[in-house]
Amino acid sequence: MSETVTVRHSTRELASFLARLRFDDIPDEAVERTKDLFLDWVGSALAGSNERPVRTLERFAREMGPAGGPSEDLTSRRRTSPLFAALVNGAASHVVEQDDLHNASVFHPATVVFPAALAAAQQTGASGREFLAASVAGYEAGVRVGRFLGRSHYRVFHTTGTAGTLAAAAAVSHLLGAGEETTLHALGSAGTQAAGLWEFLRDAADSKQLHTAKAASDGLLAAYLARDGFTGAGRILEGERGMAAGMSSDADPNKLVEGLGASWAVLETSFKYHASCRHTHPAADALLKGMREHRLAADDITRVRACVHQAAIDVLGPVTDPRTIHQSKFSMGFVLAVIARNGSAGINDFTEEALGDAALRRFSDKVEMVLDSEVDAAYPRRWIGLVEIETKGGGRFTSRVDVPKGDPGNTLGCEELEEKARNLAAYGGGASEGEMDRIVARIWGLEEETDVRDLLPEGSE
Amino acid sequence: MSETVTVRHSTRELASFLARLRFDDIPDEAVERTKDLFLDWVGSALAGSNERPVRTLERFAREMGPAGGPSEDLTSRRRTSPLFAALVNGAASHVVEQDDLHNASVFHPATVVFPAALAAAQQTGASGREFLAASVAGYEAGVRVGRFLGRSHYRVFHTTGTAGTLAAAAAVSHLLGAGEETTLHALGSAGTQAAGLWEFLRDAADSKQLHTAKAASDGLLAAYLARDGFTGAGRILEGERGMAAGMSSDADPNKLVEGLGASWAVLETSFKYHASCRHTHPAADALLKGMREHRLAADDITRVRACVHQAAIDVLGPVTDPRTIHQSKFSMGFVLAVIARNGSAGINDFTEEALGDAALRRFSDKVEMVLDSEVDAAYPRRWIGLVEIETKGGGRFTSRVDVPKGDPGNTLGCEELEEKARNLAAYGGGASEGEMDRIVARIWGLEEETDVRDLLPEGSE
Repeated sequence: MSETVTVRHSTRELASFLARLRFDDIPDEAVERTKDLFLDWVGSALAGSNERPVRTLERFAREMGPAGGPSEDLTSRRRTSPLFAALVNGAASHVVEQDDLHNASVFHPATVVFPAALAAAQQTGASGREFLAASVAGYEAGVRVGRFLGRSHYRVFHTTGTAGTLAAAAAVSHLLGAGEETTLHALGSAGTQAAGLWEFLRDAADSKQLHTAKAASDGLLAAYLARDGFTGAGRILEGERGMAAGMSSDADPNKLVEGLGASWAVLETSFKYHASCRHTHPAADALLKGMREHRLAADDITRVRACVHQAAIDVLGPVTDPRTIHQSKFSMGFVLAVIARNGSAGINDFTEEALGDAALRRFSDKVEMVLDSEVDAAYPRRWIGLVEIETKGGGRFTSRVDVPKGDPGNTLGCEELEEKARNLAAYGGGASEGEMDRIVARIWGLEEETDVRDLLPEGSE
Repeated sequence: MSETVTVRHSTRELASFLARLRFDDIPDEAVERTKDLFLDWVGSALAGSNERPVRTLERFAREMGPAGGPSEDLTSRRRTSPLFAALVNGAASHVVEQDDLHNASVFHPATVVFPAALAAAQQTGASGREFLAASVAGYEAGVRVGRFLGRSHYRVFHTTGTAGTLAAAAAVSHLLGAGEETTLHALGSAGTQAAGLWEFLRDAADSKQLHTAKAASDGLLAAYLARDGFTGAGRILEGERGMAAGMSSDADPNKLVEGLGASWAVLETSFKYHASCRHTHPAADALLKGMREHRLAADDITRVRACVHQAAIDVLGPVTDPRTIHQSKFSMGFVLAVIARNGSAGINDFTEEALGDAALRRFSDKVEMVLDSEVDAAYPRRWIGLVEIETKGGGRFTSRVDVPKGDPGNTLGCEELEEKARNLAAYGGGASEGEMDRIVARIWGLEEETDVRDLLPEGSE
């Protein structure tokens, strides 16, 4: 196999950037946003504490892992080894569908980066600054890999699982002090483990939690192995038999490197305002706006046509009759029904009662999704919300939102973030108000913390 | 999404077969072969004990896993949880390239099935019969998934890593007493974790060991999670966003189910006679045969043209200048040089000295690979060996072997298998002669063993 010297080695360029990144290189705005994202993640992890798939993975961690260790499982408050802390916290922080999302990569960074980074940082005794820098590195890697893999990848693969493995590896490698070469090996070992298929959506199976759990723990594995000299492929992303060759038809290596050090993935990441699949949010916002502007109640509406991008149809289309709370968050009809009837779609709006509510089901049947060429062309860079609403009086109008709530151009403020995190912690019974006070205060001052250990007191279990 | 009732659910049919399989259903010949394969695997695992990538994974197991447990790591003789025993033994048994291969699926079953099955059986206290039946289930699942995924999959993906995850899940599920539904969930969770890319070949990186380690341990994870109610996709193989949709262009669902209960994957599996990549074996056998028939010494030969199938070019082609012992087993030139000069290519023929041997390098330069349409058309069902040899005297002839040594039609006898296993154990310093006596005796009487614990005494480490 011949190779000319002019072939650009994009994965190495990315590894080089990640290895050289220092806290002082990161703009203040990006540091502040990373703290916001971390608080948002802690809330999501605590909210997922008592969900069945998370409990099952935690049982596995008890059966297979050590009885103690340096890293905390936020859901059980047990201390364990970094591997199992990453595994369980990774599962917990994605299950209630409130964790963050990067639009252009269609990738959820927090749920794969923070579980791995926190678990490793608690072992190495990293400072708040080191933890923040590592997290920024993880976001940068994951978002870039997600964008690189492109839309064709996302059609079959759950990007948060696949790109997430490299994101976790990048964050942990940073904490372990990896240089360029070691980081490249870690990315290689992460990429060759990268997995996660959307097929589970048809059955509403538990795989989404497995994907984030495994991305976090597999990425951590890759980084620890690289620290100890285990080698990986140097061109795992762009190589002839690398990730793009096997799992994408529109990969663009330029996405791995363009604007490195100038743009920051953490600043491009959206918070979730509604507690449902992000693909429902633009339409939810447009429906809310339309109902407010036309002073409509749910019963005034006879039909809603959500004009969406193709990926929304791919992900939400199979969910025609949601049977579980989790599945209901992936039903466009159900989510818009909740929005129309409750005026919100927060974590407490998705319940067993709601699932069996006849009025919600009736509204749900009024909703259809259609592919819209303009919305689709803008995606994934912009997630335009566009709905056509018909009313009992024979009215018919469209409502449009160009920047959904939670996007960088319409982000959540500190108070909104605190409130969301506290609601999430209360939902899962994951932390008391006093404990959340302490966590919030530590996170707002994270760059001054000497370590990131013991977010919660150790459990007595 | 609509679906007609006539759609065949091949993954469920396979799961149903696996769940119902009992020891008494398995023909004696298949039981005997499974014992052969297990002994062959133990030898391979012991041979890999001291290889660097294996030691690195074992260090990870110490750092992240428990200090004790029911399952044995054959390489360190430590006892640990099933997860880490599967991880380390999975890495160890593939590294010296002496483990078995199923031709038609281009899949190495032993190195993913036995680590997982042994680790779980040692926890559940399974009998020898239960262990054998579970192993047969694992072989059946892995081989069928490998054949299903087809040649297009193997071009980019390391089938032993991907199909291997389902193979391990099937074996462990069997030991855990899973019914059809639970087995289906285990396959779903295994398939959505399935990974492994060939890109590492370019750099001779350590990923091959990571793939087998992770296939064994990820499959075990899938089975334990399913035992505890964690659900997976029902059509992870053939579904619209399942493994075939994402990772194959020639998948054939019929391969999952045809001949279930009539043919047995263990009986179709080949032993490796040479200690190199299996893609080199047909040509190695043909060269040996030609040299014997024409009474040639290595120095008499001026040129060897190995006429091969495309996959041999894909896997071996990148290795033009082997730098490590492991890589040298993937160089057609180097392997044929070893064969020509030593008359064998056993585990003791691949050394650092050999790597630097000028005569071997000179012979290596005389070897080229060319695609042969007949050989390629027969592959992967038959691995035909065909070489054209030119000699100093101007002679030119071809030599052909239709069934390479180790294939089911030209298999190894008990004595050859024992000798191979003993050589492997000695190579790795993995077990003493007395210990191998005991292991060999236990395996030949495995169907009468009450448990499969303590193959080796616990280490003092």
